[in-house]
Amino acid sequence: MAQRAGGRALCLLRGRLLPSGPAAARLGSSGPALQRAGGTEEADAEVSPRKKTFTEVQAERLEQADRSVLIKCPSKLNEKKLLQYLSSHGQIDSYFFFENRGIHALIEFSEKSSVASLQAVTGIPRAAEHHVVPYKSRLFTFTLKNPGSQAAEERPVNLSPQSHIPVNELIPKLCHADSISSQMYILLNEYQLTEENIKLRYLACSLVRDFARAYFPDSTVKPFGSSVNTFGKLGCDVDMFLDFRDIQTHATKMKKGPFEVEYQMKRLPSERLATQKILSIIGDCLDNFGPGYSSVQKILNARCPLVKFSHQPTGFQCDLSVSNSIAIRCSELLYIYGCLDPRVRALVFSLRCWARVHGLTNSVPGAWITNFSLTMMIMFFLQRRSPPIIPTLDQLKELADEKDKHVIGGYDCSKRAGFVSDKPSTLENFAFKVASTNPNSGKEVNKPESSPLYIWNPFEQDLNISKNVNQPQLEKFVAVARESAWILQKEDKTQHMISKEPWGLAAVLIPFGKSNPNTMKSRTKGIGSETIKSLLDSLKLSDANNLQKAVGK
Amino acid sequence: MAQRAGGRALCLLRGRLLPSGPAAARLGSSGPALQRAGGTEEADAEVSPRKKTFTEVQAERLEQADRSVLIKCPSKLNEKKLLQYLSSHGQIDSYFFFENRGIHALIEFSEKSSVASLQAVTGIPRAAEHHVVPYKSRLFTFTLKNPGSQAAEERPVNLSPQSHIPVNELIPKLCHADSISSQMYILLNEYQLTEENIKLRYLACSLVRDFARAYFPDSTVKPFGSSVNTFGKLGCDVDMFLDFRDIQTHATKMKKGPFEVEYQMKRLPSERLATQKILSIIGDCLDNFGPGYSSVQKILNARCPLVKFSHQPTGFQCDLSVSNSIAIRCSELLYIYGCLDPRVRALVFSLRCWARVHGLTNSVPGAWITNFSLTMMIMFFLQRRSPPIIPTLDQLKELADEKDKHVIGGYDCSKRAGFVSDKPSTLENFAFKVASTNPNSGKEVNKPESSPLYIWNPFEQDLNISKNVNQPQLEKFVAVARESAWILQKEDKTQHMISKEPWGLAAVLIPFGKSNPNTMKSRTKGIGSETIKSLLDSLKLSDANNLQKAVGK
Repeated sequence: MAQRAGGRALCLLRGRLLPSGPAAARLGSSGPALQRAGGTEEADAEVSPRKKTFTEVQAERLEQADRSVLIKCPSKLNEKKLLQYLSSHGQIDSYFFFENRGIHALIEFSEKSSVASLQAVTGIPRAAEHHVVPYKSRLFTFTLKNPGSQAAEERPVNLSPQSHIPVNELIPKLCHADSISSQMYILLNEYQLTEENIKLRYLACSLVRDFARAYFPDSTVKPFGSSVNTFGKLGCDVDMFLDFRDIQTHATKMKKGPFEVEYQMKRLPSERLATQKILSIIGDCLDNFGPGYSSVQKILNARCPLVKFSHQPTGFQCDLSVSNSIAIRCSELLYIYGCLDPRVRALVFSLRCWARVHGLTNSVPGAWITNFSLTMMIMFFLQRRSPPIIPTLDQLKELADEKDKHVIGGYDCSKRAGFVSDKPSTLENFAFKVASTNPNSGKEVNKPESSPLYIWNPFEQDLNISKNVNQPQLEKFVAVARESAWILQKEDKTQHMISKEPWGLAAVLIPFGKSNPNTMKSRTKGIGSETIKSLLDSLKLSDANNLQKAVGK
Repeated sequence: MAQRAGGRALCLLRGRLLPSGPAAARLGSSGPALQRAGGTEEADAEVSPRKKTFTEVQAERLEQADRSVLIKCPSKLNEKKLLQYLSSHGQIDSYFFFENRGIHALIEFSEKSSVASLQAVTGIPRAAEHHVVPYKSRLFTFTLKNPGSQAAEERPVNLSPQSHIPVNELIPKLCHADSISSQMYILLNEYQLTEENIKLRYLACSLVRDFARAYFPDSTVKPFGSSVNTFGKLGCDVDMFLDFRDIQTHATKMKKGPFEVEYQMKRLPSERLATQKILSIIGDCLDNFGPGYSSVQKILNARCPLVKFSHQPTGFQCDLSVSNSIAIRCSELLYIYGCLDPRVRALVFSLRCWARVHGLTNSVPGAWITNFSLTMMIMFFLQRRSPPIIPTLDQLKELADEKDKHVIGGYDCSKRAGFVSDKPSTLENFAFKVASTNPNSGKEVNKPESSPLYIWNPFEQDLNISKNVNQPQLEKFVAVARESAWILQKEDKTQHMISKEPWGLAAVLIPFGKSNPNTMKSRTKGIGSETIKSLLDSLKLSDANNLQKAVGK
């Protein structure tokens, strides 16, 4: 529906919105990784008549993951022999190796029956001192029958990286770029999810689905959030949710004969209680039956009950919740925005990295602004450029026809990728001005309550997605933003290239106080100095109180 | 193996051991219900060339249960219409109705695919105020689409009883019999499991297996104990165990290629811990996902960890444990004994009923003698008759060939139904003499420890199955036995027939103190009176101390 419409809109838009900056060509071949279908070797999406919609990509990836297995390889590995052996169980569509406490291979067979064929010859570990739980998953351990004779045949395999380089290794790379724009694309390419990592994420969901499907055969487990919204970086958590929607539709089935036939089913006073019980048991099953699941933690009394766990074989930290439809719509919206223009992702990755370096975001919950809030602020900024880089949600809605209407939980979530340049932006410096932003209308509006920062939830409009941010954090955010804007405006690239000091994006990715002791000293003289005053003027905000007033209006 | 041998032995024995007593013909048509295969209408086992072995019966029953469903019927039921509708999903092999908070039907289809066909048209209950857990079981609710128009078509259906009549209703029936032997067969027919009740028990196991199979596809859930050993009475608990043995055999599978392929599996320090975890989670699943499971209670720290639960749709109280091989061998042994001679079951049922009436056994654990201990005492008595009614376990073992060897948990559990009349019995009054009995050798032996009562476990010979029985309970048992023997010896049938007082078995099934106030008064004068003394003489035991000495030797 909306996804299809989104896809159509993407088709219309391609060719109109061209990537800018010299890294565009590089991005064209590697980014948005989600758009690439098929194996690791070939990307047949490039000959496809149109880009796939979010729902199509998800369905395809889930289906691929269903026929994939994960193999812990022998320490002395001959890739050719391994593939030769696996081919005896069926054709392999794609594969890759990665390091995670030993070498692992993700093998995607062409047919699901190949998984069963491999399982049919797989033994239960003979553990003398240990007893095993005989749950048969799609995780295998291969060992050599004759390690000695085959040692000589060992060949190094190509290992696909599953984490990004640290910032201190990124900075020298950025310094060699020829523009800030190029720097942003370099950062994007280093940080974004790879094709292989995305496959691994879908496999992690598929393995959890095997547990859910044991009792709820029509259920699926789908990733949402950063794994699928084109804004995820290597190493980010896998958010997944258990979807029962397919089951519910069966209830409307036609029935012949004089009887109404219903299942006898456990009844509970609320859907929330059912969710809690189901998550609790699946959590126990993962913990006690599943190989490699650890640190299983149930957070069932949260607004959105979830189970957190580590999955050692894939190396992911995962959050499992139930039927989070709003979250998937948000993922889809970001996916559409991420696909519309490559600059969107380059900007978001750069600003997220920047925010993290300066402690403005944090992996643990608290008063910090979230990546999602930060991203929505950036979207708001991009909606208000002149001409706008991305359409507002309201504009997408206007373009949505009857079939595209998504109404979830009472909220109108219809959207359609469109582009109407009717509202000139008044913002001059992206993301560094904070207001009550509404990504639906693309306008600053009066804050409905007194939170320091108010960002409307795009689908649940009575919710402030940045309610958690307190006044000191907001002030820190504004101060760091000013400081960074000052660096970007003042610093001279050529001079830095000669002095081999970080410049441009690289300069603002160094925590203040570490880069240049001299600049630092002048900065630590305190807020209220002449330097800061001129900065505030350049941001058209006379001081923090004024900002507060502008926000509080 | 041994089961097959047991079957062969049963073949050899038929015709040699004839049922005695006038109720034999009645027993022949209705008892041992386990022997009857197929539907409720026809028993094709009667044309079978040999009786089925225990294992064969279990496999057949489990397979029948797999293709059975349980339906909660509309209050206004037209049997013909119901069957007509169900036939649209496939041929029905057998069916019956029973009352359990409304009318229920157990439907056994000929093909498992019929269950799937019915499930495919079954809806999820639309619950306005309740939320359902969408676990799709084989339990259905049928309601009429147009209750008004079909009310007139209602016909009474034949309801199969799922509980036995209370003792006070049994006693008048017994009084009309012409011998004590007939009385015992009447009791047997009233109390033993019916074909329908056995089907329901296997269905209860099959439904639990659906839960276990979700994660352990090769597992089965099998009933053991009274549900299958031919000694269960209507209303007794369903003991079932989860069997993983099929899974273990897969480990020895032949593998081609240069690799050893094993599943990655959760490892635990002991089998006991694995058992506890698996039972715990299956218990939670039953409790939270399964319709009609209630009072789920985990007893995981017991010697044999188990989960107790009520299953309302079948009306059973169930105990689920894991791979209780010794228990299933005991069930098989009793099954062989029960099938060898109808007198065995008539005697056991009568004595169990007698013990229960007098509070010698109890449904809750304690110092009471268990039904199993009581039964083993009776077996011991029957082994020592002259000629013996049943063979000893050692004799069965001698007859077992190499293929029949069952070695479970280090104990030799080989057995074979044989019959060798080499050891004349010295016991004159069944079951009312207590000693250290060893059903393996059929001999009284010195007690290896000082428990008041010592009965060897037939398969775990270092275990005393009546270790729980304390001195007061043993004394009570002996006293009640003496009293009963006195009644059976003294009372005159003809006189009772005239006076309409209970006689024979009926007379000993009335708690002492309730039947005849006059007799009661003389009895309450206390142990040690002349009456009791003569009783003890008749039992060739001068007093309780002497008994104690005999037992304690």
